[in-house]
Amino acid sequence: MSSQPNHPALLIPGPIEFDDAVLQSMSHYSESHVGAPFVATFGETLSMLRKLFQTTDPTSQPFVISGSGTLGWDIVAANLAEPGDDVLVLHTGYFADSFADCFQTYGAKPTQLKAPIGSRPQLPEIEKALKEKKYKLLTVTHVDTSTGVLSELKALSELVRRVSPETLIIVDGVCSVGCEEIDFDKWQLDGVITASQKAIGCPAGLSISMFSGRAIKTFQSRKTPPGSYFASFKNWMPIMQNYEAKKASYFATPSPQLIHALHTSLTQILSKPLAERFATHKAASQKIKKAVTDLGLKQLASDPADQANGMTAIYLPENVKAPELLPNLLKKGVIFAGGLHKEIAAKYIRVGHMGVSVTDPKRDDIDRAIQALQTGLSNAGYQKT
Amino acid sequence: MSSQPNHPALLIPGPIEFDDAVLQSMSHYSESHVGAPFVATFGETLSMLRKLFQTTDPTSQPFVISGSGTLGWDIVAANLAEPGDDVLVLHTGYFADSFADCFQTYGAKPTQLKAPIGSRPQLPEIEKALKEKKYKLLTVTHVDTSTGVLSELKALSELVRRVSPETLIIVDGVCSVGCEEIDFDKWQLDGVITASQKAIGCPAGLSISMFSGRAIKTFQSRKTPPGSYFASFKNWMPIMQNYEAKKASYFATPSPQLIHALHTSLTQILSKPLAERFATHKAASQKIKKAVTDLGLKQLASDPADQANGMTAIYLPENVKAPELLPNLLKKGVIFAGGLHKEIAAKYIRVGHMGVSVTDPKRDDIDRAIQALQTGLSNAGYQKT
Repeated sequence: MSSQPNHPALLIPGPIEFDDAVLQSMSHYSESHVGAPFVATFGETLSMLRKLFQTTDPTSQPFVISGSGTLGWDIVAANLAEPGDDVLVLHTGYFADSFADCFQTYGAKPTQLKAPIGSRPQLPEIEKALKEKKYKLLTVTHVDTSTGVLSELKALSELVRRVSPETLIIVDGVCSVGCEEIDFDKWQLDGVITASQKAIGCPAGLSISMFSGRAIKTFQSRKTPPGSYFASFKNWMPIMQNYEAKKASYFATPSPQLIHALHTSLTQILSKPLAERFATHKAASQKIKKAVTDLGLKQLASDPADQANGMTAIYLPENVKAPELLPNLLKKGVIFAGGLHKEIAAKYIRVGHMGVSVTDPKRDDIDRAIQALQTGLSNAGYQKT
Repeated sequence: MSSQPNHPALLIPGPIEFDDAVLQSMSHYSESHVGAPFVATFGETLSMLRKLFQTTDPTSQPFVISGSGTLGWDIVAANLAEPGDDVLVLHTGYFADSFADCFQTYGAKPTQLKAPIGSRPQLPEIEKALKEKKYKLLTVTHVDTSTGVLSELKALSELVRRVSPETLIIVDGVCSVGCEEIDFDKWQLDGVITASQKAIGCPAGLSISMFSGRAIKTFQSRKTPPGSYFASFKNWMPIMQNYEAKKASYFATPSPQLIHALHTSLTQILSKPLAERFATHKAASQKIKKAVTDLGLKQLASDPADQANGMTAIYLPENVKAPELLPNLLKKGVIFAGGLHKEIAAKYIRVGHMGVSVTDPKRDDIDRAIQALQTGLSNAGYQKT
């Protein structure tokens, strides 16, 4: 039994439902941010992140900084791109537009490679783009929270290494780290940015990222200083290295409570093989996607190969409106999200299926979600044709 | 009785000890960041901040953003200064150097007005500086956490308004908001930036700030876009305005748990007159400062008018070393902080006395701190001469 009060199951693509032990860690009594007990907790947390991202390369560098996932964009754009640098932004929905906006803020020149809604840029187009211009960075949204589209990192990385080997590969993994496989070293990724409140299963408030030795070298060879103060590698790198070496260090005060919660969630995640975690997410996702198909509904991501395993974006039937359906689902004890992609926001809904809602066998969130959707649509007058 | 496990009292100048109800709010079950219950909580929190800062001017704008207090510097430097703008930074310790560094990151030109350690720039010098050059902003560290020096805002503001009325007055209130009087409207301040984990009494992880209508107008009349993406007023202003109007809005995911904790701490703070809170802090501060003087020790801030009410920075006797004294105090159940000002870090210690350690009559933190200091110094062989 959960020690949390009775509440609707939060099944949006983040924040997700949290484990009792994680939430209890949020109430940790106050500790000095430079005292030995907290320094040890933070150091262990950074080391565990290496396992989560599957990197054993000692030149890889994890960062955990107070902020939203959005801060990860500033970290990339202010440290790895310099004014005037060309950046190729693969577009699968809402988040690429914002990432491109962030690059422009720091003076880089983003070129967006757009795909139709529900799809992703294809390898031949990407190859063509990479051959036309020298890009300092390429960014890809691993799972686009606005469309539920999953990008294929392994083949993408092989392509980039073959065609433009010096281009840094940056992954927006806000909606993928913890539920989609990411093999940082083998796939030769240069940066993965994420946040705490999705598949990592820790309340919002932490920007979490991993950068390769090559990315760090790129930073170190900058001709101009980093464009941000709070997001600057120069300010944070010694701090992260010191904490991981269990030495106190200060640039800005971290949040001991959030770090304790992250420590708890990472300990839970790493207590089982990651492959098993990804398989569990895939199975739950398949169950939901089959139910959606059985209802006669379509997903935004039409090709099964493009479908995320931690969320599903579903087109609504013509006569069903989200502002009526969602409150109806809430009455049945589940919270889904509305659409986010500007062009079609009113026409679809999104379901998140990450973390304890999927991995905790004592929870029935997924079955309740499917039942609520079936009943909710039926009550709205929808019948499969 | 506290529901927190037995632990040493954290008496550093932040993070501070937290109230049980605040820590319990950190464990709040997961909520959608755009759902009605959380939107109401966030909206109320923003409205309560107006009361904490004592502003009723509807053009004032509060911001609560996931991040450390340091993020407040980026918010100021990236939104209110433009490249090339002159900024006058009043220097009372470690934090002015960093704020100046932050301004430089965004292209502004900081001029530091430095005072000897333990003092603050005097009004005639400030007047002279303001007459020599046109400054877009003036910044002042209300309480410098590295030295315990308190700046006098009211007279400073009167001076600025008289000599250079268009200069924006920006207060770094990280170690003052919640324990030192700040009368935002009457003192005609343009910006006060702070963080959650000091006298506001909510765990670290939130950058909290208030800006005047004039500051917002200055932002709106920028000739260049803001220099940061994550810290941009352009991105956050509509979000804050919508939340306060109880409308869901999205730029980056806030931390519902931290916002709940802030809501709880602000509700507690505002349940009594603020004047009473400031008087309670002053009384506890006087008690500690008297004990320090009785021990024959000196404070960094030699002039009583320059001494903060939420912390005390104390010069150690010649033969007492912080790396030996502080672990000794920990054994007695209290945690003090070491020195932070680079030039004299080894020569002094810092005690924080903010929040529930001061305001909760059921706690004896202050008496224990005084006793521990007396015994600790005596055990280290110190005798008052």
